[in-house]
Amino acid sequence: MNSERFDAWAAGEIDAVESALDAWVPAESPAGLGEAMRYGVLDGGKRLRPLLALAAAQCVGGAHDAALRAACAVELIHAYSLVHDDLPCMDNDVLRRGKPTVHVKFGEAQAMLAGDAMQALAFEILTPEAGVEPALQARLCGLLARAAGHAGMAGGQAIDLASIGVSLDERQLRDMHHRKTGALLQASVLMGAACGDATPQQWAALSEYGDAIGLAFQVVDDILDVTQASATLGKTAGKDENNNKPTYVSVLGLDAAKRHACELRDTAQAALARSGLADASCLQILADRVVERDS
Amino acid sequence: MNSERFDAWAAGEIDAVESALDAWVPAESPAGLGEAMRYGVLDGGKRLRPLLALAAAQCVGGAHDAALRAACAVELIHAYSLVHDDLPCMDNDVLRRGKPTVHVKFGEAQAMLAGDAMQALAFEILTPEAGVEPALQARLCGLLARAAGHAGMAGGQAIDLASIGVSLDERQLRDMHHRKTGALLQASVLMGAACGDATPQQWAALSEYGDAIGLAFQVVDDILDVTQASATLGKTAGKDENNNKPTYVSVLGLDAAKRHACELRDTAQAALARSGLADASCLQILADRVVERDS
Repeated sequence: MNSERFDAWAAGEIDAVESALDAWVPAESPAGLGEAMRYGVLDGGKRLRPLLALAAAQCVGGAHDAALRAACAVELIHAYSLVHDDLPCMDNDVLRRGKPTVHVKFGEAQAMLAGDAMQALAFEILTPEAGVEPALQARLCGLLARAAGHAGMAGGQAIDLASIGVSLDERQLRDMHHRKTGALLQASVLMGAACGDATPQQWAALSEYGDAIGLAFQVVDDILDVTQASATLGKTAGKDENNNKPTYVSVLGLDAAKRHACELRDTAQAALARSGLADASCLQILADRVVERDS
Repeated sequence: MNSERFDAWAAGEIDAVESALDAWVPAESPAGLGEAMRYGVLDGGKRLRPLLALAAAQCVGGAHDAALRAACAVELIHAYSLVHDDLPCMDNDVLRRGKPTVHVKFGEAQAMLAGDAMQALAFEILTPEAGVEPALQARLCGLLARAAGHAGMAGGQAIDLASIGVSLDERQLRDMHHRKTGALLQASVLMGAACGDATPQQWAALSEYGDAIGLAFQVVDDILDVTQASATLGKTAGKDENNNKPTYVSVLGLDAAKRHACELRDTAQAALARSGLADASCLQILADRVVERDS
């Protein structure tokens, strides 16, 4: 797959994800809850996690129906974490994807409930009455729960919270980001891979790929936070510095952070090269895009 | 099972639940997150939901290991909902089970993250690497996700939020409580039943039992809110009235609410009588206890 064919593939898959989320996130739900959930997850974001899941599934010949559920479930977890993260008791942010954040539009209590319901919905989507093997449903739920919980994303956010104004070394920073961002990105790849028949060698390589790409994503995020304007990012720029949070740029410096992002991309590509997968080109291109993005 | 043997059975099962939660809710977790999670779920509460799950499993000859996981998972969902419900943007409550609420002790942001991580942990507990059939894992995750999410608990809380100062009729009140409290109590019974080989007749009867007992629990909660002191309840009494929230007492009056609780208990007992279960005595006694409790 070359870059042009990748773009066509990605556009088609993003359409499928948007349609599926539109169908699965309730429009009719009590007291405006569904509306707040839909506002928090529809029509926004790069859909990187869904694309990683769908690309990994494609590489291992995974069933598309199951992979689409995995893709939407990880995106719901990601979206709920943003809704909660933006609340006044956390980052207190008013702008996300160029729009007012959920609590600005719907109030704090509704935003919290919408986030809670989005987490539950992720597991609901993974457990349909038919169409996905029960054993695969269980495996996907387990991978997602572990990536989202105390050892993964929520744990990373707790470290993030505790690190305001604190000086972290690179190892501590890496641990925080491995959990906060990396765990769910890696889970996206592995949940996609679980939808097919990955060999142990392929699984290990995809796990390493997801790990490297997860960290690369955060390093680039830290770089963009200081090099881009809010309008380009669609969210408040300079936020980490303003909040006195340690980042790869503050710990390594801008140039070294840029070099580190490229090294991590190379690590991810090397893992794919070792995987024995017949065609991992869409994951290769995704790794390049993660590092080369400007928003 | 008579009342005395029930007490011994329940005490043993509560011990098992406490030990399992103690083992499964992380003591070592980043930046104090595990500590906040443990504070929110250990050593407190009547453990009604776990007992319903374990009792239902016992009635259908369900595997105890799986039922114990189901019991702890529903309790984690219940406990996380209390942690979030007590936050300043929701009920703003400072007292729970006679102790300061999680956000009073750990701060709002940590309380929100602890709740989020507790929800993820519930699904983690339901998906162990071994010991529970994958198909049962998937079924338990599906039942729990649907009871916790937009159509269940979170949806009921959204209605609750929107009903402050609003006059609801009995049908609307019932709908709110069916979702807010009833869905998870019913799911407790059904998740326990899923651990064994319930016939369709037994499943339908247990579903009806769970539905009636779920509503009875809330009616009694509304009664206790006006008849008991905070010290007895271990939480702030008179809260609904102070918050101007509709309750069974405000809609029906105290005497009619008491009669309604008894009618719902009778409905639950009638469902058990029709279930064809050889011995449903522990569920029968639990139904009595739900209505006769004073805290």
